Amino acid sequence: MRTYLDHNATTPLRAEARRAMMDAMDVIGNPSSVHAEGRAAKMIIERGRAQVAELVGCKPQQVIFTSSATEAAALAVAQKSRHGGVFAALPTEHDCLGDWSELALPCLHNRAGEPQSSEAGLVQAGLVAISAANSETGVLRDNACVAGSGEGYSTICDITQLAGKAPVQYEDITPSYAILSAHKIGGPKGVGALINFTAEDPIPMLRGGGQEMNRRSGTENLIGIAGFGAAAAAAGADVTAGKWNDVAEIRNILEKAIEAAAQQTIFVGKGVQRLPNTSCFVTPGWKGETQVMQMDLAGFAVSAGSACSSGKVKASKVLQAMGYDETEAACAIRVSIGLETTENDVLRFAEAWAAKFEKHQMRAA
Amino acid sequence: MRTYLDHNATTPLRAEARRAMMDAMDVIGNPSSVHAEGRAAKMIIERGRAQVAELVGCKPQQVIFTSSATEAAALAVAQKSRHGGVFAALPTEHDCLGDWSELALPCLHNRAGEPQSSEAGLVQAGLVAISAANSETGVLRDNACVAGSGEGYSTICDITQLAGKAPVQYEDITPSYAILSAHKIGGPKGVGALINFTAEDPIPMLRGGGQEMNRRSGTENLIGIAGFGAAAAAAGADVTAGKWNDVAEIRNILEKAIEAAAQQTIFVGKGVQRLPNTSCFVTPGWKGETQVMQMDLAGFAVSAGSACSSGKVKASKVLQAMGYDETEAACAIRVSIGLETTENDVLRFAEAWAAKFEKHQMRAA
Repeated sequence: MRTYLDHNATTPLRAEARRAMMDAMDVIGNPSSVHAEGRAAKMIIERGRAQVAELVGCKPQQVIFTSSATEAAALAVAQKSRHGGVFAALPTEHDCLGDWSELALPCLHNRAGEPQSSEAGLVQAGLVAISAANSETGVLRDNACVAGSGEGYSTICDITQLAGKAPVQYEDITPSYAILSAHKIGGPKGVGALINFTAEDPIPMLRGGGQEMNRRSGTENLIGIAGFGAAAAAAGADVTAGKWNDVAEIRNILEKAIEAAAQQTIFVGKGVQRLPNTSCFVTPGWKGETQVMQMDLAGFAVSAGSACSSGKVKASKVLQAMGYDETEAACAIRVSIGLETTENDVLRFAEAWAAKFEKHQMRAA
Repeated sequence: MRTYLDHNATTPLRAEARRAMMDAMDVIGNPSSVHAEGRAAKMIIERGRAQVAELVGCKPQQVIFTSSATEAAALAVAQKSRHGGVFAALPTEHDCLGDWSELALPCLHNRAGEPQSSEAGLVQAGLVAISAANSETGVLRDNACVAGSGEGYSTICDITQLAGKAPVQYEDITPSYAILSAHKIGGPKGVGALINFTAEDPIPMLRGGGQEMNRRSGTENLIGIAGFGAAAAAAGADVTAGKWNDVAEIRNILEKAIEAAAQQTIFVGKGVQRLPNTSCFVTPGWKGETQVMQMDLAGFAVSAGSACSSGKVKASKVLQAMGYDETEAACAIRVSIGLETTENDVLRFAEAWAAKFEKHQMRAA
């Protein structure tokens, strides 16, 4: 029996998404076709759009479906000429934003995840990526809200990890763009969205058939969008029902059990606002990569750092930005649980982890 | 009962693709994760890659999965700096290529679909889009083969319509890039591929996690790729089995019946090599848009021009490039049948079409 504790990497498909996708499989038409089959397909797209809009708090026409949050990020960054011309990502952003950054910014969080330094440096850039929640540590942006466009700069807010786990709230000043992905909220992999809060349509990266109101050409991922929409609706309902409060309790039980086994372990962001499902912890001297492999053999899926790195296992860039040294950052793992994860799951994990840790200590001694 | 005769716009999902997609729905992991769940997901991607490679006649590592042929086209065009810097599309290319064209090229086909003019003009451009088969008329490139990179220019070959309907063959000199889409061969909408025949990896348009061997970041469309691969395998087997010969016979029966009802109707490309399933015909004086709507009401899905045009119904650009005037080009429809289309289907269509045509003539008189 396997226990999946890597929900920030990707989530199992929700039953609602699966059903919607299977229904969409029966729809023959191309959403751009004018005949009945085409119109039926178009309706599925528009229902999905309304469902995603509802989850993220925007108007349906502000939703531009993409193939991933990564594509949404690239599309948002491509608009930088409208926002002063320079794009910068905080050092803790996902690589899909970080890899486009033209300016080094200070980290907004210290080792403990507490806010540090001012946002004054952000003004140098016209367009800044500030995520709502960090994928590796779960640490929320200080005000626990989605970053708004500040004085003198516009923002791209990565809500990929926040959406579906907590209410997506915008401050008085909303971001210019938000990005998210279906597969982090129980939808399928390979579909995401750019939320465009600006008054102008983005300059498209993909040209051709004029889909997505000329903002993103290419025949739509009909089945994927059906799943995204259904997952968004279900995820939103679960957030409203407060189901993640229970998840946070289970996460806390996990951390207590890990702490009991290894008092030197550092729980990143434990004292600050963070996602209810995420535990990122550093056990000095025991490589995260090794932990991940040993726990995998023991039947548990967890990760070291961000998962979208094609097999690379490197010292976490995020933790290093927060002030951990490379050796510490290489000794971190992330356990990210889901709505279905039970207390028993995390206690079994902690037990197995503790046994491996004991062996590690014996070898190290 | 509806009869779907718009397979060049998109195809119904093959049973094999549906099964593969449903199996993939049970796979939890992120293909980039190193644990067992991640490795299982990765295997699905790689199986799909091998299946697509087999269909199009390339090595698996030459397949770069994208969200559509449109994205594949944009990615190929983005490499133009490596091919002399100027990209040009033939006037008959799909908009996903045509919309990037920087140079007007002559049409390689006359009204009848016969080859005309030399390819000498192509040398002016460094990178040229030449499709293997036209989506609207089904007319194949003269040699019925995939376009090879010629002397002094490189090519992007759009095999979207050819793949899965005829063997994909390359000449001695292969194209630099080929593009295709799952949903034209019985796979799902929202997944495609760029086939990179050059020795260099393309400069990526999407950055981040480094998926697709750093050539296209973004978590992979796992379920879609599973469907694409299964559809490619099934489509390839059907081509090998010669099933499209029967389809061509049914298409010819359709054309004979239409011709009997309206002798002034022009069948575009009837005398040249064309796709076995496609019939594009011009009935002067009767608008294609009207025909499509009337046939839709009668229970048949067909199209006027390319479908990927978000509800736009304009006079066919392709036919105008071939020498039809705007009035004629506005009076074309495309009937594109599939492997499941029966003689009875097309005869019922022709009967309904003839009845509508008679009414049209009475109104026009």
